[in-house]
Amino acid sequence: MAASIEDVARLAGVSIATVSRSLRGLPDVATATRDKVLAAAQQLDYVASPFAARLASGRSSTFGVVVPFVHRWFFAEVLGAVEGVLRGAGYDLLLHNLGDSEGRERFFSVLPVRKRVDAVIVVSLALTADEVEALTSLELPVGVVGARFPGLSSVRIDDVAAARQAVDHLLSLGHRRIALIGGDTDDPMRFTPPHHRLIGYREALNAIEVPYDPALERLGYFTVGGGEAAMRELLELAERPTAVFAESDEMAYGAMRAIRRAGLRVGHDIAVIGFDDHSNADLMDLSTVRQPVAEQGALLTHAMLAALADDTEPTDTVLPTELVVRGSTVLERSVYKN
Amino acid sequence: MAASIEDVARLAGVSIATVSRSLRGLPDVATATRDKVLAAAQQLDYVASPFAARLASGRSSTFGVVVPFVHRWFFAEVLGAVEGVLRGAGYDLLLHNLGDSEGRERFFSVLPVRKRVDAVIVVSLALTADEVEALTSLELPVGVVGARFPGLSSVRIDDVAAARQAVDHLLSLGHRRIALIGGDTDDPMRFTPPHHRLIGYREALNAIEVPYDPALERLGYFTVGGGEAAMRELLELAERPTAVFAESDEMAYGAMRAIRRAGLRVGHDIAVIGFDDHSNADLMDLSTVRQPVAEQGALLTHAMLAALADDTEPTDTVLPTELVVRGSTVLERSVYKN
Repeated sequence: MAASIEDVARLAGVSIATVSRSLRGLPDVATATRDKVLAAAQQLDYVASPFAARLASGRSSTFGVVVPFVHRWFFAEVLGAVEGVLRGAGYDLLLHNLGDSEGRERFFSVLPVRKRVDAVIVVSLALTADEVEALTSLELPVGVVGARFPGLSSVRIDDVAAARQAVDHLLSLGHRRIALIGGDTDDPMRFTPPHHRLIGYREALNAIEVPYDPALERLGYFTVGGGEAAMRELLELAERPTAVFAESDEMAYGAMRAIRRAGLRVGHDIAVIGFDDHSNADLMDLSTVRQPVAEQGALLTHAMLAALADDTEPTDTVLPTELVVRGSTVLERSVYKN
Repeated sequence: MAASIEDVARLAGVSIATVSRSLRGLPDVATATRDKVLAAAQQLDYVASPFAARLASGRSSTFGVVVPFVHRWFFAEVLGAVEGVLRGAGYDLLLHNLGDSEGRERFFSVLPVRKRVDAVIVVSLALTADEVEALTSLELPVGVVGARFPGLSSVRIDDVAAARQAVDHLLSLGHRRIALIGGDTDDPMRFTPPHHRLIGYREALNAIEVPYDPALERLGYFTVGGGEAAMRELLELAERPTAVFAESDEMAYGAMRAIRRAGLRVGHDIAVIGFDDHSNADLMDLSTVRQPVAEQGALLTHAMLAALADDTEPTDTVLPTELVVRGSTVLERSVYKN
């Protein structure tokens, strides 16, 4: 038997109104409370049920999900979470992977979701005004994971603040020559994190008046190989950095490899911090800023299902990130004996 | 302008007939030749074009893709490759993630792809006879990545032979007490590799009459944490193994962590070999058996598009695997100075 909103409220130990507010991503719900509600909803496989409304309206029972890349860790995690909530609610998932700028152009001009889906979820794309307008023209609920746009629902983190958490950690350890390995802010695929994480990096250094050195900002293209190549360049600088902030854990893995291959010790000669808390970050003993990835996807999907059921206004939810300190910045924290 | 089959033949330096045979996955094409053709087809974004046929037949221009899990590395890689070929051919992708045994039961009883797709691709599921019959009842081309079933097209590796490659490598280094960390062959999600890799492990030991010891076979459930827990148990044996074969790289990562946390050295005190050549295996300095993952997805999708265009018979293609020796089994191969 399907769980009811009452069951979720009982398990989470909160009121029905709080469950409803939490699952729609409305503000004025404490983070701890929302987490409790989300956990209870997941445990009970509860989803707001738009079945009755759908039967009357002839809806398609399908969500369109738009991602820039399907096989990168972050996107696969979000996709898995979105799919899990949709499956629980009896919805199908039409997957649109943009892949490249041509695929992106085609998607937003053809809009192949038209008349095939009840709602659209977009993952981590820096949408242009034209793209937002195209999505709005569908006259369907549209939600975004990892970014915010006017008129669209969103669940995201604060990338600027999270990047500052990472760089502030390095500053607190006494580092002043701190490099950045980041994404290409001119990338035609324009996904949002590179812009905001670069701002956070610069803000953190600026706040304590560390002089700006463009030679320390390198592109790693969000791949392991890109991170490794960027680190090799940094190691060749006359005055090399003592610490590195990589905008993703995968770029940090590559940086760690470059450091080791140069005969240097990570966390001893050069500190490295990443971003994500990727599934292998603990194994790699990598300090990082953890973002709740699956939770962003699940929470937005719950909000979209609620919007379908009740025709609610778009909401914006910002989830907290957390500094995770491991051996790559503080060697004493290392879990490895060799 | 879209590439033609002639363009692919020219770039690959083979005949048009060979391109056609290669992309349909027909036998009697040398592996090197097929790889060349596949590379040329990908470079040119060439796909067998069933557009004309579709216009006349009222097809949906959509493939259904069925996966047991969406956020595990292998499945995300295959999905990315399948999606790339479909996008190039102008097809949409309806994603069905089974998730659990209940989701699986629902999928095969409801068959939500009926009348919504032109073809179905199933990834790495050990289908029951009833499930094969259900898929066959759709009267659509159905293909499987990673397994073979009567009447369905397939692209796969030989998991038995590949597991033997891994264990033979450990035997050749002189190891005789070799543990297995594997998947659950009773798992209701029944995906195929655990059965075959267990057989390969036992065959390799049997072939040189290493006595069978059930205490050395442990379940790691294809997760990092599962691999770590299994390795901890193995380290507590009165006579502990000198080498471990993990049926996936992710389980091997967990085993390596357990070994290090016990104050032992990977590759020195205990050798570890994985399976996959996962994207982080090189970073982790893990010996493994490489399987072509994206290639399996791409090749099957090309074969299915060709089947849609020409109504060809189901084909079965077995791609080769490759032993990759790194520091986790042969310490001298380690790329790391520390």
